[in-house]
Amino acid sequence: FVKRATAEGGPDFIPLEKRVATFDNDGTLWVEQPVYTEAVFTFDRVKALAPRHPEWVETEPYKSALAGDYDAVARQGDAAFQTLAMAASTGMTNAEFEQSVVQWLETARHPRFDRPYTSLVYQTMLELLAYLRDNGFKTFIVSGGGVEFMRAWAEKAYGIPPEQVLGSTVAVSFEMRDGTPVLRRLDKAATMDVGPVKAESIGTIIGRRPVFAAGNSDGDLEMLQWTTMAKGPRFGMLVHHTDAAREWDYDRDSAIGRLGRALDQAPERGWLVVDMKRDWRTIFP
Amino acid sequence: FVKRATAEGGPDFIPLEKRVATFDNDGTLWVEQPVYTEAVFTFDRVKALAPRHPEWVETEPYKSALAGDYDAVARQGDAAFQTLAMAASTGMTNAEFEQSVVQWLETARHPRFDRPYTSLVYQTMLELLAYLRDNGFKTFIVSGGGVEFMRAWAEKAYGIPPEQVLGSTVAVSFEMRDGTPVLRRLDKAATMDVGPVKAESIGTIIGRRPVFAAGNSDGDLEMLQWTTMAKGPRFGMLVHHTDAAREWDYDRDSAIGRLGRALDQAPERGWLVVDMKRDWRTIFP
Repeated sequence: FVKRATAEGGPDFIPLEKRVATFDNDGTLWVEQPVYTEAVFTFDRVKALAPRHPEWVETEPYKSALAGDYDAVARQGDAAFQTLAMAASTGMTNAEFEQSVVQWLETARHPRFDRPYTSLVYQTMLELLAYLRDNGFKTFIVSGGGVEFMRAWAEKAYGIPPEQVLGSTVAVSFEMRDGTPVLRRLDKAATMDVGPVKAESIGTIIGRRPVFAAGNSDGDLEMLQWTTMAKGPRFGMLVHHTDAAREWDYDRDSAIGRLGRALDQAPERGWLVVDMKRDWRTIFP
Repeated sequence: FVKRATAEGGPDFIPLEKRVATFDNDGTLWVEQPVYTEAVFTFDRVKALAPRHPEWVETEPYKSALAGDYDAVARQGDAAFQTLAMAASTGMTNAEFEQSVVQWLETARHPRFDRPYTSLVYQTMLELLAYLRDNGFKTFIVSGGGVEFMRAWAEKAYGIPPEQVLGSTVAVSFEMRDGTPVLRRLDKAATMDVGPVKAESIGTIIGRRPVFAAGNSDGDLEMLQWTTMAKGPRFGMLVHHTDAAREWDYDRDSAIGRLGRALDQAPERGWLVVDMKRDWRTIFP
């Protein structure tokens, strides 16, 4: 695909400015099991804030979060994670929130691999990002994760700058605090960047139809459809988690990263399905 | 500013990735009098669609639009223009809308200058955009104008790609139309990118605080505050329209591009105020 896309004068040549590649994050660029990294961060913050919110003890999804029950939250759907993420940052400025993410990542360790979360990115995907950029593609993240959560580390981890990170958002308010302008995070979800909303966000924010998209779950289905179901050279791929020994083995029955409908459509749409166990020599750097 | 920002090792050096420059569009990069260009486009479309909407004859802001009364719409505030813009494109796909903009621009002429609107961009600002880019700045538009309206021509006119254009948005819906995915424009405003919302959009979409911002009206006040009221080298500028002979002369009493509060704050904030009549040798290319 890349050879055809960059062959000047060839029938499938893609001009430089149209080489837009979009990537899901959780489960596509880094590990999302046993639960989204952002959820671990969020649970830690919800616990710290709980004394100020006695009502949380009896209210979902806070109740399950305080019990450390990721599965119970996951069963309530991705929106439950967003509710918690919002509660965990309401009233902070964006800058304060970013700082809290950076600090948390310095000490947090993945429960299975006992490594910093930002080291649990997929080696092959790092190589793919670099390969595409070397060939003039502009790489974007389009994720259900919180956009400010990702921006705190995505540039360092993936070489993807903040302005090329799209994700779920909370509303912010421009305010003067002691004569200094801040962006204060509100208790109000703005977008939940999953499923059809990924295609819609790409339209509204990037404004250019991608020619390459990579995902790993049904939340990426519409992004892959939007990217590939059009004329010209296009590339869609799904990371299929098939390696219980080195990472995880899950698809259509998983509450986190469920992959069923997109997997079923892959053959007719010509999407590459990565078999992690067979195709990836190295999982993590 | 640019010399200091790019002087490696100097006290005011700005690393390449942080050189974000944001520009308002209407009245800052191109002409906005006697009325926003997008409003002219919108009025034309509202007139064409009116037979299907008999209720418009009695309802504002449609009534004034059908009478061709730009001043009456302007007096209803910028939101009235957005209502009309939305009505003019509801049900179209983004791609169809873009096509309609491109077609309209091919034949539309400015009433005073009798030139295509896309030729009524400011020569000095084109040079400034190029100068900043030559020095490693990434240039963005952050405008109250419709984002898809601008994307249809901004790359050609300014060298600013779609993904670096922020503006007012309407909600879109990802749908399959005869087996082909489309983004359909809904009758629902998503954001109105004016005033504090400009700073908020910069936070949410760009995710990096600009170090340079240019505007021309009070709608740009918070963007300039957000950009300049922080540590480190920063640059704010206002284009002051002072040239009735070659362009227009207006500020605090104009319904279009009102400039009062921002002009009053310019001295204490250290913003450069361009005196169009005195400072610009050439207005249009």
